[in-house]
Amino acid sequence: MKLMPKKSSTPGPRDERGVLAARIVAAAREEFAEHGWAGTTIRAVARAADVDPALVYHYFGSKGGLLDAATNPPQRWLENVAKVWTTPVDQLGTAVLTLMLASWADAEVGPTLHAILQTAAHEAATREKLRRVVEGSLMGVSQLGADERDRLVRSGLIASQTIGFALMRYVWKIEPIASMTDDEAIAAIAPNLQRYVGGQIQ
Amino acid sequence: MKLMPKKSSTPGPRDERGVLAARIVAAAREEFAEHGWAGTTIRAVARAADVDPALVYHYFGSKGGLLDAATNPPQRWLENVAKVWTTPVDQLGTAVLTLMLASWADAEVGPTLHAILQTAAHEAATREKLRRVVEGSLMGVSQLGADERDRLVRSGLIASQTIGFALMRYVWKIEPIASMTDDEAIAAIAPNLQRYVGGQIQ
Repeated sequence: MKLMPKKSSTPGPRDERGVLAARIVAAAREEFAEHGWAGTTIRAVARAADVDPALVYHYFGSKGGLLDAATNPPQRWLENVAKVWTTPVDQLGTAVLTLMLASWADAEVGPTLHAILQTAAHEAATREKLRRVVEGSLMGVSQLGADERDRLVRSGLIASQTIGFALMRYVWKIEPIASMTDDEAIAAIAPNLQRYVGGQIQ
Repeated sequence: MKLMPKKSSTPGPRDERGVLAARIVAAAREEFAEHGWAGTTIRAVARAADVDPALVYHYFGSKGGLLDAATNPPQRWLENVAKVWTTPVDQLGTAVLTLMLASWADAEVGPTLHAILQTAAHEAATREKLRRVVEGSLMGVSQLGADERDRLVRSGLIASQTIGFALMRYVWKIEPIASMTDDEAIAAIAPNLQRYVGGQIQ
């Protein structure tokens, strides 16, 4: 991730650079989320961020560099995900789903997740990042199960349900999944997640 | 879908055309499934099918036309999906999952589903096709629930779990989900699908 340009090629004061880079990344997230890899151009991102396309190249080097920056989940989100796994086990299904719903509603995290899912098909690098996000965030830090494999199976099953639901609800927008209220989603899905947390699965 | 070339531009006997077109479509499925939209070229498809690239253009017009042909689910699969919804309700969870596992193992259906999921992010047309496949096959013909919305919510939830599992197992190949046996998958997931079929979800 190269959010900051090299010192030797400073186009403006340090603060301005940070602000402009953040604005470009935010615009890139929206473009990649909406149009995928092939449908996104540096020019369109620059227009949405109200900067010159040359500045995008200057900061991020290439469309690939821009994608990399746009699909890095914010640190505070990774911390929230790690924290959710410390929820008491009997409330974990609801806690995971509640965090997932809040994440997609977040102005920064939602487009990042959307961009990752939209571009994972295209770029080997994004697919690898998606694998790392799923393994690290959704599976890696859980403490479920009787042994290591059981832990990974259970957290993998939780990931499979939350990811499939997120795709239908937020990315493909298939009704009536897309317009269910959060409370309806929790009532419908949390008990299934809870079975993966602590139920008999074999 | 333009599997057959126009009669006026016949490059060979009728049978040969069918055979060649089918070979090109099969190669295209594999390429789109593996490399997505942006990573697939007519040239690579022609090479894999052992035909001249000009013949691919002749039969399918463009990369978009080829994608359309490659992502049309076989009729026999659509019929199998329709039939599975007539399974007695108390066995439906297992039946849906068993069909899903068999579909991905099928030499023709597996790459088709894979290609749809891999390219849905890119092409509005493929995303629309995916929506039609999910709504028509996975949701449309079910007879669950107390009313129309309940029917669509239940079948949509079933779709969300089966699609999320398929992505992790077959497309992103995340372990240990990717290497679970079919029996393990059924034991783990079918009861959750069964809850969506007939359980209390609100």
